[in-house]
Amino acid sequence: MSRAPFRPRAVYRHWTPVATQWADNDAYGHVNNAVHYRWFDTAVNGWLIGRGLLDVTSGDPIGLVVETGCRYAAPLTYPEPAEVGLSVEEVGRSSVRFLLGVFAPEAERAAAEGFFVHVYVRRADRRPVPVPDAWRAALAEIAA
Amino acid sequence: MSRAPFRPRAVYRHWTPVATQWADNDAYGHVNNAVHYRWFDTAVNGWLIGRGLLDVTSGDPIGLVVETGCRYAAPLTYPEPAEVGLSVEEVGRSSVRFLLGVFAPEAERAAAEGFFVHVYVRRADRRPVPVPDAWRAALAEIAA
Amino acid sequence: MSRAPFRPRAVYRHWTPVATQWADNDAYGHVNNAVHYRWFDTAVNGWLIGRGLLDVTSGDPIGLVVETGCRYAAPLTYPEPAEVGLSVEEVGRSSVRFLLGVFAPEAERAAAEGFFVHVYVRRADRRPVPVPDAWRAALAEIAA
Amino acid sequence: MSRAPFRPRAVYRHWTPVATQWADNDAYGHVNNAVHYRWFDTAVNGWLIGRGLLDVTSGDPIGLVVETGCRYAAPLTYPEPAEVGLSVEEVGRSSVRFLLGVFAPEAERAAAEGFFVHVYVRRADRRPVPVPDAWRAALAEIAA
Repeated sequence: MSRAPFRPRAVYRHWTPVATQWADNDAYGHVNNAVHYRWFDTAVNGWLIGRGLLDVTSGDPIGLVVETGCRYAAPLTYPEPAEVGLSVEEVGRSSVRFLLGVFAPEAERAAAEGFFVHVYVRRADRRPVPVPDAWRAALAEIAA
Repeated sequence: MSRAPFRPRAVYRHWTPVATQWADNDAYGHVNNAVHYRWFDTAVNGWLIGRGLLDVTSGDPIGLVVETGCRYAAPLTYPEPAEVGLSVEEVGRSSVRFLLGVFAPEAERAAAEGFFVHVYVRRADRRPVPVPDAWRAALAEIAA
Repeated sequence: MSRAPFRPRAVYRHWTPVATQWADNDAYGHVNNAVHYRWFDTAVNGWLIGRGLLDVTSGDPIGLVVETGCRYAAPLTYPEPAEVGLSVEEVGRSSVRFLLGVFAPEAERAAAEGFFVHVYVRRADRRPVPVPDAWRAALAEIAA
Repeated sequence: MSRAPFRPRAVYRHWTPVATQWADNDAYGHVNNAVHYRWFDTAVNGWLIGRGLLDVTSGDPIGLVVETGCRYAAPLTYPEPAEVGLSVEEVGRSSVRFLLGVFAPEAERAAAEGFFVHVYVRRADRRPVPVPDAWRAALAEIAA
């Protein structure tokens, strides 16, 4: 298990507010660990769409998830909201590794910290393609 | 299938903004129909908690769902947000029937309209109890 | 709220086993009410695909959900499995109303009973089309 | 990103069949990456409950998730089922690291491989406790 301390709010460049849902709380009364990964997907794709890079229905390339991970330090609980910080850790030839931090609204320390690796592929055959230059320029703006 | 026209925004007394998630979109590219029911639960319990009536971990009574339904008129799509209107249609001895409308942000017409029937039960044995007077007073404030 | 008694196992013509998941249990320790609707979708589309009628990625028509509903009589709890009975209540010009019953493995009485109305539409413009004859013949075989 | 090859079926000691659901498929037509984590939770807790170790509603200790991760090699698609292999990689003082492999029914190669770290805590105050001896003996039986 990774022992690195969680990164502070200052490392994140883009924020996505997330509303918790009644059914996010599991039998122990807190947001289930799989929900965080739904938020990661939502934050990464939301930023890509918002920047005009990703077009889910007809654009090229599209992003497929090849690796994700998350460490959990503190529970979150519906109905309390949360917010997800996003920044870019590394841009490869065809892939991007994003860093994500989940925070309770006023909290300085992250409740959870994760990563999310996208590989960009051609829609038609889902073969990896180089990250387009316009994407690289935008991704550089949210570098960690 | 019910043919009644969907009710307008004006019938709703409490609003819950909902953020759509990447994984809410199903294989046809729109928010899956079961997601609306997650929002209904979230809106009803959120209002009850926010009004200080429902205490999920230790209060009494708690609300169990005995019937729900929804009609769908228009698709919703991540990453567009939505909002859920809530009002009370009927208060019985132990049960409350809530009306719920799902709207795209600027839309006048509901994308979906549903209902949600809670029965209030004692936590310990989950037997129905009368809706407490304090709850009735609050519920009356959001009558449809 | 509908008072009709729940229909018996004998009314259902096709069965789909469902595995409950850890995160299906909500804060009250039972399968959340919205999960049943995920099972309905899974049972209806699974039957349509299994019969060679629906082709999700490229066939025509596709089915859009226009109305659903469910009444709940008894809780279900992970890790116990369940099974969903399916039959057809009514076939219209473009729509089909399915009946669904959720049962614990050995139970005679349904834990929940619901319905699910599909409208069949052309993939390209999502306009309703008549239910194809081959579909009608198959649907007749699982009439309630 | 980790480059280690995925482990073969033979490394897994316990298998959980999983049924995919209509709504598991996301806008790209395959099971969303967060769903795998729902299966991990289901497989780990299901094994613990099945062995009589974990009692979700009243037993002690309970398991909290402190870290998870997953690498994805191949898509899975509803309505195809899958199966999740489980084994134990490491038992610490209060924690257990499980290895999980997701396989299509006949596939030799895993579609995804992940891990799941539980810390066992006292129910009342959620402070870590040593993994009980009876748990250690059972966990040793499914060592990777």
